[in-house]
Amino acid sequence: MTYLAHINIMPKAELLDPQGKVVVKNLPNLGIQGVSDVRIGKHVTMTLEAGSEQEAHDKVETACSKLLANVIMEGYDFVVEEA
Amino acid sequence: MTYLAHINIMPKAELLDPQGKVVVKNLPNLGIQGVSDVRIGKHVTMTLEAGSEQEAHDKVETACSKLLANVIMEGYDFVVEEA
Repeated sequence: MTYLAHINIMPKAELLDPQGKVVVKNLPNLGIQGVSDVRIGKHVTMTLEAGSEQEAHDKVETACSKLLANVIMEGYDFVVEEA
Repeated sequence: MTYLAHINIMPKAELLDPQGKVVVKNLPNLGIQGVSDVRIGKHVTMTLEAGSEQEAHDKVETACSKLLANVIMEGYDFVVEEA
């Protein structure tokens, strides 16, 4: 079976996100008022073969924790669906 | 009202995503087989004040098209919810 995973990897809430701060600071220059917080992370889509949804879930979990996310500074969550 | 927007910004499907290709190539070294495609983009969360959900939607649309996304190379989608 083919599965598609949607993964979000975000800087942890207690860490400063300088890239997001710059966006907040610059939005008024585009005429957009009222934005108080922006946080910027990664969105990853992964297409994979697995025997079951559980197996797909386990593969994505391993990929996130070992390669995609820096677990010291980032948290992640994902959903797996049949492709 | 305070709204929270979840924005995904992804490289367009017809463009090569070299960062994703590197991940596909390296996952077998972690013991993860069967991953055929990975695409890496940005996930942005934005907290904003707006008079209505429509106004929040319009602000996020403007922020995406004018600042957050490179619309030549990237596509975006987002959802807005009450925070």
